[in-house]
Amino acid sequence: MKDIKIGLIGAGRIGKLHAENLASQIPNAKLVALADPELKLAKTVADNFNIPYHFDDYHHIIDHPEIDAVIICSPTNTHTQIIQEAANAGKHIFCEKPIDFDLDRTLKSLEIIKKNGIKFQVGFNRRFDPNFQSVENKILQGDIGDLHILRITSRDPAPPPISYIEVSGGIFLDMMIHDFDMARYLVKSEVVEVYAAGGVMVDNAIGEAGDIDTATVTLKFANGALGTIDNSRQAVYGYDQRIEAFGSKGMIRAENVATDTCIVSNDKGSHQPPLPHFFLDRYKSSYLTEMIKFLLCIENDSMPEVIGNDGLKAMEIALAAKESYLMNRPIKIKNTT
Amino acid sequence: MKDIKIGLIGAGRIGKLHAENLASQIPNAKLVALADPELKLAKTVADNFNIPYHFDDYHHIIDHPEIDAVIICSPTNTHTQIIQEAANAGKHIFCEKPIDFDLDRTLKSLEIIKKNGIKFQVGFNRRFDPNFQSVENKILQGDIGDLHILRITSRDPAPPPISYIEVSGGIFLDMMIHDFDMARYLVKSEVVEVYAAGGVMVDNAIGEAGDIDTATVTLKFANGALGTIDNSRQAVYGYDQRIEAFGSKGMIRAENVATDTCIVSNDKGSHQPPLPHFFLDRYKSSYLTEMIKFLLCIENDSMPEVIGNDGLKAMEIALAAKESYLMNRPIKIKNTT
Amino acid sequence: MKDIKIGLIGAGRIGKLHAENLASQIPNAKLVALADPELKLAKTVADNFNIPYHFDDYHHIIDHPEIDAVIICSPTNTHTQIIQEAANAGKHIFCEKPIDFDLDRTLKSLEIIKKNGIKFQVGFNRRFDPNFQSVENKILQGDIGDLHILRITSRDPAPPPISYIEVSGGIFLDMMIHDFDMARYLVKSEVVEVYAAGGVMVDNAIGEAGDIDTATVTLKFANGALGTIDNSRQAVYGYDQRIEAFGSKGMIRAENVATDTCIVSNDKGSHQPPLPHFFLDRYKSSYLTEMIKFLLCIENDSMPEVIGNDGLKAMEIALAAKESYLMNRPIKIKNTT
Amino acid sequence: MKDIKIGLIGAGRIGKLHAENLASQIPNAKLVALADPELKLAKTVADNFNIPYHFDDYHHIIDHPEIDAVIICSPTNTHTQIIQEAANAGKHIFCEKPIDFDLDRTLKSLEIIKKNGIKFQVGFNRRFDPNFQSVENKILQGDIGDLHILRITSRDPAPPPISYIEVSGGIFLDMMIHDFDMARYLVKSEVVEVYAAGGVMVDNAIGEAGDIDTATVTLKFANGALGTIDNSRQAVYGYDQRIEAFGSKGMIRAENVATDTCIVSNDKGSHQPPLPHFFLDRYKSSYLTEMIKFLLCIENDSMPEVIGNDGLKAMEIALAAKESYLMNRPIKIKNTT
Repeated sequence: MKDIKIGLIGAGRIGKLHAENLASQIPNAKLVALADPELKLAKTVADNFNIPYHFDDYHHIIDHPEIDAVIICSPTNTHTQIIQEAANAGKHIFCEKPIDFDLDRTLKSLEIIKKNGIKFQVGFNRRFDPNFQSVENKILQGDIGDLHILRITSRDPAPPPISYIEVSGGIFLDMMIHDFDMARYLVKSEVVEVYAAGGVMVDNAIGEAGDIDTATVTLKFANGALGTIDNSRQAVYGYDQRIEAFGSKGMIRAENVATDTCIVSNDKGSHQPPLPHFFLDRYKSSYLTEMIKFLLCIENDSMPEVIGNDGLKAMEIALAAKESYLMNRPIKIKNTT
Repeated sequence: MKDIKIGLIGAGRIGKLHAENLASQIPNAKLVALADPELKLAKTVADNFNIPYHFDDYHHIIDHPEIDAVIICSPTNTHTQIIQEAANAGKHIFCEKPIDFDLDRTLKSLEIIKKNGIKFQVGFNRRFDPNFQSVENKILQGDIGDLHILRITSRDPAPPPISYIEVSGGIFLDMMIHDFDMARYLVKSEVVEVYAAGGVMVDNAIGEAGDIDTATVTLKFANGALGTIDNSRQAVYGYDQRIEAFGSKGMIRAENVATDTCIVSNDKGSHQPPLPHFFLDRYKSSYLTEMIKFLLCIENDSMPEVIGNDGLKAMEIALAAKESYLMNRPIKIKNTT
Repeated sequence: MKDIKIGLIGAGRIGKLHAENLASQIPNAKLVALADPELKLAKTVADNFNIPYHFDDYHHIIDHPEIDAVIICSPTNTHTQIIQEAANAGKHIFCEKPIDFDLDRTLKSLEIIKKNGIKFQVGFNRRFDPNFQSVENKILQGDIGDLHILRITSRDPAPPPISYIEVSGGIFLDMMIHDFDMARYLVKSEVVEVYAAGGVMVDNAIGEAGDIDTATVTLKFANGALGTIDNSRQAVYGYDQRIEAFGSKGMIRAENVATDTCIVSNDKGSHQPPLPHFFLDRYKSSYLTEMIKFLLCIENDSMPEVIGNDGLKAMEIALAAKESYLMNRPIKIKNTT
Repeated sequence: MKDIKIGLIGAGRIGKLHAENLASQIPNAKLVALADPELKLAKTVADNFNIPYHFDDYHHIIDHPEIDAVIICSPTNTHTQIIQEAANAGKHIFCEKPIDFDLDRTLKSLEIIKKNGIKFQVGFNRRFDPNFQSVENKILQGDIGDLHILRITSRDPAPPPISYIEVSGGIFLDMMIHDFDMARYLVKSEVVEVYAAGGVMVDNAIGEAGDIDTATVTLKFANGALGTIDNSRQAVYGYDQRIEAFGSKGMIRAENVATDTCIVSNDKGSHQPPLPHFFLDRYKSSYLTEMIKFLLCIENDSMPEVIGNDGLKAMEIALAAKESYLMNRPIKIKNTT
């Protein structure tokens, strides 16, 4: 396997996660540069993971002639500009979700990606979780017959800072977008209509920031199947990530991953520990796998498993869900492609 | 405990169930008469359970001076007439769900019940299931804090005959009405709006009969909580009855009752048997308990745990769900009381 | 089904349990008389369950010409005398476990039973537990191939009073005898050797009474299989009753029966309630079923499912286990039959 | 963390496992040489993991002045000689289990280790499994009070080749030795007596090779606790590794690690996949952790968590178990230290 030279843009939480995986877990990935507007942070992270170069301006990465691929972990509102510049510079691109908050900018970016013929993968890491892959696999091989109802539960252990909420794009674009993608991944049919209900139940400050913290969504798929998703910003028992697919021949459930296998029984009953705290623990392997798969696509000149259209479709559903919540009626998905 | 003399109207499946409980499990219940338009069926059931009298005309029961209470298990479209006649005759009434398909007839019946001061209990037996009572109890004592999301899964093992579907009132009034009542029982707040999606996925004949066989519903409660319910007429793995209540301090789940505790592990994996086949098995104890509680209310002159207003409210939600499905938009609940 | 007239000897805990089942759950059982040396207790229990006659001397039952069967729930050291007198009087006999503490008296009783041709069933109720019957059924149908290792866990929630311990015959004859019978029931091969280890870990007063409260036993079966049993007089989390059968094609486990299906998840983890407290709850259905089956054997003139030889064999193993513990070496089973 | 230079002796299955961990997972471990009598195999493995030197004679490793530590993965009958030579050469030593089949050679080796003051760790990797560490931790913090009964189940998915059985030292020294160490690790008290029963149930060829394939063992500990262990060379449902610790205040169970979290329900019941196939999957993290901890002991000049005495004690129990099986009586542990 030949080396692939990588530039990483964004040194926040998710940027650090990818840096660590690239630096220590993927032998042929050569992480050569890191850019973050906070130069001091960039330096610290670069030092930590033996990244030769660090910059405050990401253009140094895009202009770097030896870099094969860029990993975009910067704030969402910077994604499409970086995508377009990187694509035009011929770099392969891995971009964190969502691609953008705006459909037009996203569509334009996908065109530029297409024109330049580069690999583009969106960071829907949950598709690479082995448990959910097992669900997909069993559905595909017909274990539950025709899918009738898909249920996704996705609840964070605790809300992010309000400063994050304010620039997040809202619960549907920031959080439930993972579930919209998961729904498409599992049902293999496009969502044609969405109905969203929700409210501020966890923290009034989230409401004051113009967002909600609890939501349930109904999806109608082109093939007739139904889906329900529920999200909460706060599950005190830990990061709750479950899927249930019900069909004509049976049901598949992917239960939560336990912290350990121990059960303690005493005079109060039987007890198991809380769930792994958050996505860095729960989806550790999926973050690594998505990156390995991205690099393999570059090496083998093959199609990524999560492409630009997947990012676009999830956005369309998320935007429709937001509109549905605001208008309190089901919203048909605009088919932009 | 003094004896209570009972007349049973309707000798079908649910009538037989109540006959058996009354005859063999409740010492102070004296089942003195049974009426069913099919006299031969009435005779067979009466013989089986040592019921002294049987009739083809239920008026013989209503006119019987010694009968204290009637149990109405006849087809739904006969309920309100029998209720009104029985109430005017001063009989206490236990009536199977739903009270009726029509709100006006139901309201009028409740007035007559009120005027006559008799006990009236609706057959929402699931409220008496010990597992769901444990859920209610834990919610009431604050174990999960404020309730944010209630999820109810209720799937039958196999569809009823089309002849039953045709007179059932449809999935929302016939099947999901149990879940609407359960939602009110657990959330302790009225449903103010409902959105229903659904389809014919199990059997086209159900569609041809004007009904659907699969549905998901979103409920909004007056206290701000959200609810989701999913129903299917066919879960091949057995009668699937689960509840999940999620709140600010945690979550309670009532899982399915297993057929036995055995797990077989072999080279294919680990295996547990299918679920108890249907409601007669799964809710055996709740059918008995609801009847005991009804008789105790008569004896102690106390208020039944499931009153006429509960039957009415569940109907209102079911009718709104039906309208929501037909109109494809959320429907506000008409508050008739 | 014709009526069977029954006399009950012993009005203690287990006597009351059988009285309740016979009086309210088995329509053709006519409980006509109860005997207990404590006449006041006999009267109270007789009144509770509408038993026409009560006596302080059990001979009134044995001499009663209309009584078909006697249920022996008196202290173990009275069993063989009552058995012999009842058998000679031509009564069918249901006798609580163990038959006796002495092999010779037991053998003589079995001879008298045989000579009189009456039905004799021993109270190994656990054979009638539906979960363990499912284990037996799966073993018989070959689901795990040849059985290699049988493991039985049997732990009481709390020790009985020391006064009970003193006359109990010790942990092997009083408590583990159920497990010895279960082992024979499941393995379908006789125990040929036993090794017992144990100690006083729960309560020193048990040691002072000459007994132990914790024991592990190894069984060797004639067919080559191995068995392990562990007993404790005190499992603070409730009555722990589990079986695991491991064989050439797999494993069957019968897990504990849960108190309810609810799981509560909060910031401390996930929690289930303690186990049903004790045998009256856990084995409720098996006590009823064993009695129904006994009466059916009388009615149909068929062989009981737990016969005198089963009682004898379990005693032989228990006595060998006691000797093994005292001698600290494996003891071969004396084959008295 | 400074680099530690390592020589690996033995390029078989477990040698390769350690080579991979050292080469790719532990940054400061520098695997500089590999020795195996099969030079071709040594070359292949060395090439795979970028190990600079490979030899057919392990003395080249012991004589290598720059090597800090040796990892001994050669056949058991070569262990003590290599240990003694390596210790005298001042190398730190990680040695796979068991140390030897002979107590005297082992004792002499431990003396030489002590005299040379080097670090010596035995490969009881299961002590580093996070689930079992959680069990130990909960016992230590008093969650189950005083330990009364420890139960360990350890069953391989399939027997090794007969050629391996022939030089393995038998089931007690080769397989159950892990469980003897686990018992000491959890009970924190020495085993004073052991009783073993067993047989050939899986494969007659194992019997012909002088070994057994199925065994149950009873342990008595100095603190009065009891232990039971069962081993089988063939669990068709996968590698079965469970622990149950029962005490005065409750019970802790470490259940098997599931392959994934998916449950499929269909008309046959509910199904979960077989267990992870074998130790390389099941104990992946514990093999890595034990090696990291060994290197940290070298770096920090601290005591390894599994020392020579642990290897010795487990051997003593294994040898006593073997004698117990052959003599069919409980055997007291010889306290050689």
